[in-house]
Amino acid sequence: MSALNPAVETLSLEAAQAHFRDRHDSFLANRFEQEPEFGSLLAAMRYATLLGGKRVRPFLVYATGSMLGSSELTLDAPAAAIECVHAYSLVHDDLPAMDDDALRRGQPTCHIKFDEATAILAGDALQSLAFSLISEPIPGVAPERQLRMVAVLAEAAGLRGMCGGQMLDIAATGTTISATELEHVHRLKTGALLRASVMLGALTAPGIEEETLDALDDFAQAIGLAFQVQDDILDVTGDTQTLGKQQGADQALNKSTYPALLGLEGSKQRLSDLHQKALHALSRIPYNTALLNAFTDYLVTRDR
Amino acid sequence: MSALNPAVETLSLEAAQAHFRDRHDSFLANRFEQEPEFGSLLAAMRYATLLGGKRVRPFLVYATGSMLGSSELTLDAPAAAIECVHAYSLVHDDLPAMDDDALRRGQPTCHIKFDEATAILAGDALQSLAFSLISEPIPGVAPERQLRMVAVLAEAAGLRGMCGGQMLDIAATGTTISATELEHVHRLKTGALLRASVMLGALTAPGIEEETLDALDDFAQAIGLAFQVQDDILDVTGDTQTLGKQQGADQALNKSTYPALLGLEGSKQRLSDLHQKALHALSRIPYNTALLNAFTDYLVTRDR
Repeated sequence: MSALNPAVETLSLEAAQAHFRDRHDSFLANRFEQEPEFGSLLAAMRYATLLGGKRVRPFLVYATGSMLGSSELTLDAPAAAIECVHAYSLVHDDLPAMDDDALRRGQPTCHIKFDEATAILAGDALQSLAFSLISEPIPGVAPERQLRMVAVLAEAAGLRGMCGGQMLDIAATGTTISATELEHVHRLKTGALLRASVMLGALTAPGIEEETLDALDDFAQAIGLAFQVQDDILDVTGDTQTLGKQQGADQALNKSTYPALLGLEGSKQRLSDLHQKALHALSRIPYNTALLNAFTDYLVTRDR
Repeated sequence: MSALNPAVETLSLEAAQAHFRDRHDSFLANRFEQEPEFGSLLAAMRYATLLGGKRVRPFLVYATGSMLGSSELTLDAPAAAIECVHAYSLVHDDLPAMDDDALRRGQPTCHIKFDEATAILAGDALQSLAFSLISEPIPGVAPERQLRMVAVLAEAAGLRGMCGGQMLDIAATGTTISATELEHVHRLKTGALLRASVMLGALTAPGIEEETLDALDDFAQAIGLAFQVQDDILDVTGDTQTLGKQQGADQALNKSTYPALLGLEGSKQRLSDLHQKALHALSRIPYNTALLNAFTDYLVTRDR
């Protein structure tokens, strides 16, 4: 059994998060330096990706892959690819025709900082960049395996994943849906990409066993939902300053949320169930899951 | 030397175009039947791709690949992938924040038929679908080669290709640019994807020689520009009914065009030069280029 890379194993969760965040940001910043500027397109892509953010998805790629013995050099491209997809989705979600948000991470959204056309194109080009990153040679990953990683990312990003969930979310706005339907929305809208983050990290490990992949998938699905439940709870209980976005924004948009459907206490119970489910899945994994355990605890207790 | 597939070799250009168009449309329609519907997302994706169009890019994939001996079964996914990228770009280009077009191929544009949010998401999901199509197992293509195809498509679609060109085009609107700058815009905006079409077709052939790839690339670059010059000429000389879009739309938007910069006669001369360049590149290719020759002649004489 390969253990977590010694260098990372000795770090606290906070230190590991900072380490992976910095590594991701440097990798992507360096990549942007190699790209040409046309109008403000590159500037808008940089703005959309490098102006902060929790880097949850890159963390999951790095933490999962490191746990299974992959080097950070192997994990850089998949981590950046998935963050580019996430960042593009935020840029497009913030557009006037979508959520019409002016503030993101405490800063003007991309279409406010630049303009709508640039924001649309920056989102589009970020999605392409994700597939460039993940299709270029990755050290230590066989081409067949890498092709599977491209397919995983494409499915998670598209109709059967993030885009489909976003469409369902829009369709549900202003209507009453059941808790089951809401869960379906979130499994697609945010869950698919979080699940893909764990899968991309796992698929870089040549000898990964099917049982471990299954347990990691159960883990990823549980934290994917837990992440959204906690987001919805924070929209009710958090404050705008800490969140970096408008508290109560979901309620104002009349969006279906867990607190609206299950009540605040019901939502907290659901979060607790998902927390236990995630930890149980990790207990089935014959590697050093300490970092993923700590991250799971963090996800359900975070205040922003 | 492998000859053009006998079945296609006996067809006229018109019959080959119809054959590949029908094959492409059936393949994509069949794919959509396997996908889930969320809100109107799938309907909008279908509308954006299957409501007509010249299918220039799929034709180039099929014609190039067939010439080199690849089966149509091998070429289906790359042909559909590149058309999905093209279709998504039209959906986003037509948005109010971009070109604000209400009519496309004689029909309401996607955001008019559905709504803006759905059109943005349908475009996004079509780009993801392109990468799903091209990353799933393709019969007869080795994984290393297929990974290179993903990379070619991603680069052609993104910052260094179509999106970059679109941004430059927007930045140039309302300003005066040189013919050289205009050519740069088009090499990216439309040229990159046409070039990728030829490259994807070529890369499916296992034994393709570097010299043939080079000649095909020269050919693709020449027809890529020729295609745009003829588009600009048609915007001046064509009629709205035949074009299926508003004649004079570029002029009305104060866009830089070849006729505006070189005059109509100068543009026709440029078109003729590119025509000869394309035919010369084909003459360097030791395969049966009859279909690509005929297609080149068609591109520069088409009236829509």
